[in-house]
Amino acid sequence: MALATTGGADIVPRILLGLAVVLLLAKLGGELFERVGQPAVLGELLAGIAIGNAHVFGLTTFDFLRDEATFSVLAEIGVVLLLFEVGLESNVKEMLGVGPMALAVAVIGVIVPSVLGFGAAVLFYPEESFYAHLFVGTILCATSVGITARVLKDLGRLDQRESKIILGAAVIDDVLGLVTLATVTGMIAAADSGRSMGAGAIVAIVGKAAGFLLVSVLVGLWLSPRLFRLATYLRSKGLLLTLSLSFCFLLAFAAHEFGLAPIVGSFTAGLILEEGHYRELARREAMNLHHALQPIAAFLVPVFFVLMGLRVDVRVFADPSVLGFAAVLTAAAIVGKQACSAAVWERGLDRILVGIGMVPRGEVGLIFAGIGATLILSGHAVVTPPIFSAAVIMVIVTTLVTPPLLKWRFSAKRSVSR
Amino acid sequence: MALATTGGADIVPRILLGLAVVLLLAKLGGELFERVGQPAVLGELLAGIAIGNAHVFGLTTFDFLRDEATFSVLAEIGVVLLLFEVGLESNVKEMLGVGPMALAVAVIGVIVPSVLGFGAAVLFYPEESFYAHLFVGTILCATSVGITARVLKDLGRLDQRESKIILGAAVIDDVLGLVTLATVTGMIAAADSGRSMGAGAIVAIVGKAAGFLLVSVLVGLWLSPRLFRLATYLRSKGLLLTLSLSFCFLLAFAAHEFGLAPIVGSFTAGLILEEGHYRELARREAMNLHHALQPIAAFLVPVFFVLMGLRVDVRVFADPSVLGFAAVLTAAAIVGKQACSAAVWERGLDRILVGIGMVPRGEVGLIFAGIGATLILSGHAVVTPPIFSAAVIMVIVTTLVTPPLLKWRFSAKRSVSR
Repeated sequence: MALATTGGADIVPRILLGLAVVLLLAKLGGELFERVGQPAVLGELLAGIAIGNAHVFGLTTFDFLRDEATFSVLAEIGVVLLLFEVGLESNVKEMLGVGPMALAVAVIGVIVPSVLGFGAAVLFYPEESFYAHLFVGTILCATSVGITARVLKDLGRLDQRESKIILGAAVIDDVLGLVTLATVTGMIAAADSGRSMGAGAIVAIVGKAAGFLLVSVLVGLWLSPRLFRLATYLRSKGLLLTLSLSFCFLLAFAAHEFGLAPIVGSFTAGLILEEGHYRELARREAMNLHHALQPIAAFLVPVFFVLMGLRVDVRVFADPSVLGFAAVLTAAAIVGKQACSAAVWERGLDRILVGIGMVPRGEVGLIFAGIGATLILSGHAVVTPPIFSAAVIMVIVTTLVTPPLLKWRFSAKRSVSR
Repeated sequence: MALATTGGADIVPRILLGLAVVLLLAKLGGELFERVGQPAVLGELLAGIAIGNAHVFGLTTFDFLRDEATFSVLAEIGVVLLLFEVGLESNVKEMLGVGPMALAVAVIGVIVPSVLGFGAAVLFYPEESFYAHLFVGTILCATSVGITARVLKDLGRLDQRESKIILGAAVIDDVLGLVTLATVTGMIAAADSGRSMGAGAIVAIVGKAAGFLLVSVLVGLWLSPRLFRLATYLRSKGLLLTLSLSFCFLLAFAAHEFGLAPIVGSFTAGLILEEGHYRELARREAMNLHHALQPIAAFLVPVFFVLMGLRVDVRVFADPSVLGFAAVLTAAAIVGKQACSAAVWERGLDRILVGIGMVPRGEVGLIFAGIGATLILSGHAVVTPPIFSAAVIMVIVTTLVTPPLLKWRFSAKRSVSR
């Protein structure tokens, strides 16, 4: 075959059907929750949970969406674009302005939940090894920024200083989480085989991640205005959108290559791009970059949140043996991040808001738990099935409580300031 | 795992890189060709051919794009959206107005190239069976509307009556092509096994396809205004875009279920949707549907055309044994569709323009040739490797010559009418 084959693969019609269903359900779920004063994203997540667990009632029509790789890719492009949009609403200077505070928030937000998680594991599973306890702590450390970013965006609060602290801390969190995971995994591998773990490996991970952030920001800030000035010599239409998307995707790819999440890259791309860089191009094309990105995001972002919901298996809630530990773990996850408030030393800032914003664990906690489940120490898995189920419940609960909590906090703050 | 795993699969970063590269190359290719007065789509196709054949020079970096299923799906969504956009610029009434002429154009455009292709096959490969000759004719019959639709759109000529005839004929063509393929395939299977072929099977195919068009238009025209009126009771933002996209995807899926190409469904969806249906919603959201679709199309449509180019293997041109037959086959494909002009009986219409618009064979011709290569008659393939290569060359050439020919014809016409 030498050209694309339209309709050749039967996967395409199914994806089209899936997209139609997901878009409609996301809208209906969002509508329902907005009507009761909740963020739309909660409705999208619950719409996903509803169709994802419809097989309990014998309806398996939409089960294919969960396992379809293409669908995950569309969802991923969606969340990459969401963080790009969020990044665009800020810039490097503003982020550096909250830098020290974001760093402190991230560090406390990694240490305190880890310690609490470690304690909970010791309490509930004393028979497990020290390393298993340590790993539970690790699962609690990393913030998932997608949910918070989406809620802040929906509420139009991205310009607030607290929002910038949360976003900055989430980026640093990604680096710290990676380092913690690598360290604990390395320690376990060493303990299992009797080898010792090199500090060099950890330094390399930190160095790579920090290097990415530094180099991409420095090179990006230098390159971006020049690139867009160069583009004004071209005659094609739609250059602003195409160049911005390419820039976003390239940095997302580069972030992954440097061991970070793609969304860290697209967020950084958004921070780097400033209106000043592309003003002339925007004027010529009578195009507002935010407006141009909005339909693409409206198309793909709900796919991410519905898919997140789709992958929740509610049957984990039916296992009474894990519910106690799950409850304590969830409490540790939520309370632990509230310690972040302590790092917000500036007067007039809403400390509790920052703490709430750091609560969701989302996909990162699950990836960590999944890795733990594959690690073997003295012949058995470091993360046992009941611990894994409890981690899943913790992730679900922290993800679902954050949107209403943030919404509540913003309303509370408004009433206070009046 | 219970939630989406960000960055868990390594496929996502590669897709992001691929998208960035494709978007940039498409823009550069388009720019280059627009500068020399050619349609941008030609540049996108050739950019694809360039990176698709870079392995000849040892560069295999982008070869993964060709084989990546996800990438094809993105391309397919792109062409589905393109035909939706194109459909939106017309409506059912206008299409019915050109209906009889479009039908005549389609019928002639199926018969004449088939006969010419049959003759060419008899001439070059007299040793092959009657059925092999017949199959070559079948390969020549179906028009691929993607290229023509894109060029007409880029040139802003979709409102012209000739454009509507071409688009209408292409839809009917899809039905006729399917029927021809089914008939010839059935005849070959019957000849090979000694069974006889039922006319019922053909009637069923025609009935299903015609039924889809009839039912979707009737139900769609009734449902669409009611659906959008209902939507005005919802409070969510972005309803117009979400509902329109869902409608487009649902009809694309339905078309496939009825044995037609998804693009026929999305084109029909575009025809059905009329501004009157969603005027109130559009006013409330201060949203123009065309403007909202444009960024999504700008993101995904070039992926389709670059991928089309990517899949062209230029090595087929290096086989002297097939070049003679390929040249004759290509001539038959182009000249054969010019017979369509005869069906344009209305005065003042540009007959040659219609003939040119029907030239590209694109993916449809390749699917047909591919099916022929898998059919076995008396122990050997109906479409032999040299015939298949010649068909590939015919598809490439008809696809590449159409954009400049259309552009030329529009300029020629303008000079005449001045």
